[in-house]
Amino acid sequence: MPTIDLDSDLTVFEYPYHVRYSEVGHRGLMTAPALINAFQDCSTFQSEALGVGMAWLRNEQRAWVLTHWQIVVDRYPSLCEEIAVGTFANSFKGFTAKRNFYIKDNAGKYIARAQSSWAFIDLSTGRPTRPTPAHIDPYGSHDPLELPAEDRRVKLPDVLEQREPIIVRRGLIDTNEHVNNCQYVQMALELLPRETAPTSIRVDYRRAAVLGDTIYPSIGEIGHRAVVALNDSAGAPFAVVELA
Amino acid sequence: MPTIDLDSDLTVFEYPYHVRYSEVGHRGLMTAPALINAFQDCSTFQSEALGVGMAWLRNEQRAWVLTHWQIVVDRYPSLCEEIAVGTFANSFKGFTAKRNFYIKDNAGKYIARAQSSWAFIDLSTGRPTRPTPAHIDPYGSHDPLELPAEDRRVKLPDVLEQREPIIVRRGLIDTNEHVNNCQYVQMALELLPRETAPTSIRVDYRRAAVLGDTIYPSIGEIGHRAVVALNDSAGAPFAVVELA
Repeated sequence: MPTIDLDSDLTVFEYPYHVRYSEVGHRGLMTAPALINAFQDCSTFQSEALGVGMAWLRNEQRAWVLTHWQIVVDRYPSLCEEIAVGTFANSFKGFTAKRNFYIKDNAGKYIARAQSSWAFIDLSTGRPTRPTPAHIDPYGSHDPLELPAEDRRVKLPDVLEQREPIIVRRGLIDTNEHVNNCQYVQMALELLPRETAPTSIRVDYRRAAVLGDTIYPSIGEIGHRAVVALNDSAGAPFAVVELA
Repeated sequence: MPTIDLDSDLTVFEYPYHVRYSEVGHRGLMTAPALINAFQDCSTFQSEALGVGMAWLRNEQRAWVLTHWQIVVDRYPSLCEEIAVGTFANSFKGFTAKRNFYIKDNAGKYIARAQSSWAFIDLSTGRPTRPTPAHIDPYGSHDPLELPAEDRRVKLPDVLEQREPIIVRRGLIDTNEHVNNCQYVQMALELLPRETAPTSIRVDYRRAAVLGDTIYPSIGEIGHRAVVALNDSAGAPFAVVELA
């Protein structure tokens, strides 16, 4: 993880970053999936730095699973741009947690902000379970960043157009043996009629797809928002993605 | 790009790096495509630092295009591991160039090494052209790293088994409007019967696939080496990938 001072306050965790060639799209700007990866990487670095990282959590047979994203992007940073990616926890309630993410430019100005919701899972049962103080106290908690008010649930449009099924290949799977959350956004972006750098992304994660699953996408619109349902063969959503 | 001292010798360009969550596979080790991206990102950072970066080159209507990879990996670094990714040019001859890449662990020991070949392209004609001293002098040149001797061309096995065609979607395209070189290796890895962390990767890049192309993959074996041909509809290769 980035060099860190263990005596400093790691409950707001920030890492400096230069946008790499592999993170930009053909216009030379960071892509939305790269931005989501940067957020998730940041929280992973924080957990490791706080001593509650992936290996420790796996020994406990526990995992944090993402259930909701709301991401607002004022501007996508460009190739080689110096940015800072940060995260902090907002609250822990029952088996859930809320966490903010941000990107600041090198003048310290926010250029992207996100709110996320997580569930704590017992890996032996696959069901939510309440974290203990050992799991959550190291993170602390901070007042949430301001984000536009939205309903918790992403609404589906009345009319949805079916698209080609997607088979879950190995490259989409992460350390949890699930399709990585960033991939659902990538799938939704691929369905749009033209390349877009969305300024608002919302995702409801309902159930994780695994290797060999087939995902049935459909797409519709509500006003200027494109909504993509990524369903299983029975029509139950793995995830619903809204892009604007 | 990483903070650099412009007075230092940038002809061997190294950037420090911590392996991120988004770069590891489900075993927690950096994936082969992430490693290739790290190499390519490194040479991009070097070009920017040397003042011969992407925007400058585009104004000149020129681009360096990768034609060959030979990559040897002793060990894939793990999540959060501190590594250094480096690159330097070896030689410039006619319209071609050779360039080494490496990854060192935090004791300074090489854990991955690569040799690559490039062609200099006139974007207005799409044909190779000879670079001028302004294009190549800033890079300098250094003795090549030792790598196992291999033929320049990747041999195709006598028997190849056809696999499902791949349609080139937007997410595979890079700033050159071509399928990014890393994606051909990703496609080849997906065709292997099980997840592998190859210790030897060789690729002949013959012709760049573009948005909307269909790639026809086939796979065979020579000894313990898997060879994947990624062809167009007429059977001419976009790329040939060998994994061992």
